Amino acid sequence: MELKRKARLALTDIYGKERLKTSKEDRVCYAYDARNARCIPDAVVFPTSAEEISRTLALACELGFPVVPRGSGTGTTGGSVAVEGGVVLVTTLMDRIVEIDTDNFTAEVEPGVITGDFHKAVEAKGMFYPPDPSSAGVSTLGGNVAECAGGPRAVKYGVTRDYVLGVEAVLPTGEIVHTGVRTAKGVVGYDLTRLLVGSEGTLAVITRILLKLLPLPAATATLKVSFASMDEAAEAVTRIIASGTLPRCVEYMDEASISCAQSIADLDLPQGCRSILLIEVDGSASEVATSLEAVAGIVKGAGAMAVEEARDAHEAKRLWTVRKKVSPALYLFGPDKINEDIVVPRSAIPKMVKKIESLKKEYGLPMVSFGHAGDGNIHFNVMIDKKDPVQKLRADAVIDEIFDHTLALGGTLSGEHGVGITKREYIGKELGDKELEIMRGIKKLFDPKGILNPSKIF
Amino acid sequence: MELKRKARLALTDIYGKERLKTSKEDRVCYAYDARNARCIPDAVVFPTSAEEISRTLALACELGFPVVPRGSGTGTTGGSVAVEGGVVLVTTLMDRIVEIDTDNFTAEVEPGVITGDFHKAVEAKGMFYPPDPSSAGVSTLGGNVAECAGGPRAVKYGVTRDYVLGVEAVLPTGEIVHTGVRTAKGVVGYDLTRLLVGSEGTLAVITRILLKLLPLPAATATLKVSFASMDEAAEAVTRIIASGTLPRCVEYMDEASISCAQSIADLDLPQGCRSILLIEVDGSASEVATSLEAVAGIVKGAGAMAVEEARDAHEAKRLWTVRKKVSPALYLFGPDKINEDIVVPRSAIPKMVKKIESLKKEYGLPMVSFGHAGDGNIHFNVMIDKKDPVQKLRADAVIDEIFDHTLALGGTLSGEHGVGITKREYIGKELGDKELEIMRGIKKLFDPKGILNPSKIF
Repeated sequence: MELKRKARLALTDIYGKERLKTSKEDRVCYAYDARNARCIPDAVVFPTSAEEISRTLALACELGFPVVPRGSGTGTTGGSVAVEGGVVLVTTLMDRIVEIDTDNFTAEVEPGVITGDFHKAVEAKGMFYPPDPSSAGVSTLGGNVAECAGGPRAVKYGVTRDYVLGVEAVLPTGEIVHTGVRTAKGVVGYDLTRLLVGSEGTLAVITRILLKLLPLPAATATLKVSFASMDEAAEAVTRIIASGTLPRCVEYMDEASISCAQSIADLDLPQGCRSILLIEVDGSASEVATSLEAVAGIVKGAGAMAVEEARDAHEAKRLWTVRKKVSPALYLFGPDKINEDIVVPRSAIPKMVKKIESLKKEYGLPMVSFGHAGDGNIHFNVMIDKKDPVQKLRADAVIDEIFDHTLALGGTLSGEHGVGITKREYIGKELGDKELEIMRGIKKLFDPKGILNPSKIF
Repeated sequence: MELKRKARLALTDIYGKERLKTSKEDRVCYAYDARNARCIPDAVVFPTSAEEISRTLALACELGFPVVPRGSGTGTTGGSVAVEGGVVLVTTLMDRIVEIDTDNFTAEVEPGVITGDFHKAVEAKGMFYPPDPSSAGVSTLGGNVAECAGGPRAVKYGVTRDYVLGVEAVLPTGEIVHTGVRTAKGVVGYDLTRLLVGSEGTLAVITRILLKLLPLPAATATLKVSFASMDEAAEAVTRIIASGTLPRCVEYMDEASISCAQSIADLDLPQGCRSILLIEVDGSASEVATSLEAVAGIVKGAGAMAVEEARDAHEAKRLWTVRKKVSPALYLFGPDKINEDIVVPRSAIPKMVKKIESLKKEYGLPMVSFGHAGDGNIHFNVMIDKKDPVQKLRADAVIDEIFDHTLALGGTLSGEHGVGITKREYIGKELGDKELEIMRGIKKLFDPKGILNPSKIF
């Protein structure tokens, strides 16, 4: 569907020529997210205010074209691509940190602020914003809110949802609304704030975000722990959490992930190491020392082959860089990646890892898993060549089995990536008919014309 | 409106004679909550399963009678009283702690579990459920979820919303739904869980709750700090939070609250003390020692007259008992209490306290404030004799001014009590027309016949 002349003229009225892009070259740049499938929009606009977004959505309702909100496009489930064409609305020009309130530990930001820039800004003032998705250097806070981004620190600090106090948002019908409060507590009316968090840009375009901040921990320390088996690593995680020490990150890498990581940098691992944990603790200096000692004792008791503390911030950073580079390095195993982010109750990780091992043998496809062991969030990847129809069919069968097993273990199909378009066909495995009917009813209530980010989630 | 014969027969079918109460004596017992206004229901039922609740709600839709869910009736805004008559559905027989999972730090409970019993059960296993409303000894977890209960520990640990992973609930139309996940992360579909938390029993009857738990802190310590003025106390709170030490509770009492508390027990305060802070820190033993020292230093710097640490658990408990008894002791000042739980950004507490002082002089009514200074949640009370129409009018004017001032300071009209019926007429001060329209639309979507807890919130 192409935009009508009337729509193009009206959009030019709002955005001028500078902030409305309609050339093919410009549109192709906004045809992808990290999922790597192509949906070319009819136009791309760059609003600088809620009012412009309001006018755009009112126009979309009137003339019937889709609008797809987008931050930096780092999502992995197609949430920000224009499946049905229409206008991609890019929020990156709305990138002001409006206020950092050092008395009340809150911040007010526009949606286009880069997550990593926000981390730096609040940390410079002695404050801390825990959500830290892998793409933090590029992703926007608006996108983080839309997807309810997580990351490794969730084991101790929770996810984006836990830090959003309120938002300003534009409804698909064009009205500007304000939800939530500026305070830690607030129970006046239904919780529209958390309804919008994680709604994947289908209910409203977020134009202002009120965030809760914490005091910046005085100290952190990182441990790299090697194990001869994934089972032992998983057992160590269970024992750490049960001990009452809550690290801020407990990341694991399986044998295949380690091979990938080794291809980037020498991890200096003992012979026979088949799994590693990266554990980060934080708090006051004395608390960190106590936690480190406790954790080291526990992992040794659980059979660790080697326990090494990063000697300094530089070495800790190197360890984390390696962990974050595993994902792109997976292309060693195949040209196409199917990337899932299932979650199981933490104690079920060994069962899940065993399942993955047996599927690997059964289907003969390269599979890699790593992720946030502390909260049971497994980034499970199948590497294939999509041009090979047999590989594609096998991969689909693997995903199906993995999803069924995840749900049987009491888990969920997505911890932080969302449904978007890639998990849409599976949503009925996790959610019942009535639950889906209610969600569709909410979508209809917010977006009676169905113009905002259509064909996503359900 | 009385229940039709057909409805009574059908309810007898579901509940037998034992669990259906229709005598006036029985109905009067369920005509009140802590707000102290009388609404006698037509019948009271005591379900033992989601299926029975489902049948009851389907029947209510068919025959058109209201159903009002109720736990222990400790709410303060009329949320559990049958304003339009009908059936009060009491969940107290559904009081099983179904599971406490020590590996994954989760629990599954029925809605009728008493909050304090749950605290004891999880603490016996070395785990911790932070939400701790004043009524914890009596209130139910179902009621806590319906109202999004808070309490003093929210400053560090958040509120009920932050601990609810998922629920089983019966929709007003009778369908049983399951929302959320058993894991810390989960982003499949819209967040129906948080939509139900704090919805005051107007969207669904909660029949099962999945809760997140934390490791039980190894140590706690309580400080009682005396100040010559409320301003100094408030300044101390701001400095403590800004220092990076996050106590788990920071409670304050103003001069009038202190008088009340003194009437219960000698608080052993220095001459001229006009405000006290109760500060509780927790963590490992060493962390608690460090925090105590830091906090003591800060409050002295802010002008504290005296800083005393509770010498033992017994003394700490006594301090907290006094704090919790202030609310009932307020009846010293008048036969009727108007109890509000406004929240302002923490740093605005001195401004709010000054406003209260000036209103006291202006209107000549006894007013008392105390509450959760750490999160800006002020329990503000006006004591009157409602039979005196002049006092009643004055009190209404005071409340109006307090609410306007709260919102002007960036606050909210309720931190933990909810809207119910007592704040319904004020909700338009805080929420815009479009936001209310969306909320009413959600109510209609869940409850097309309007039979579940009608006349509440809006």
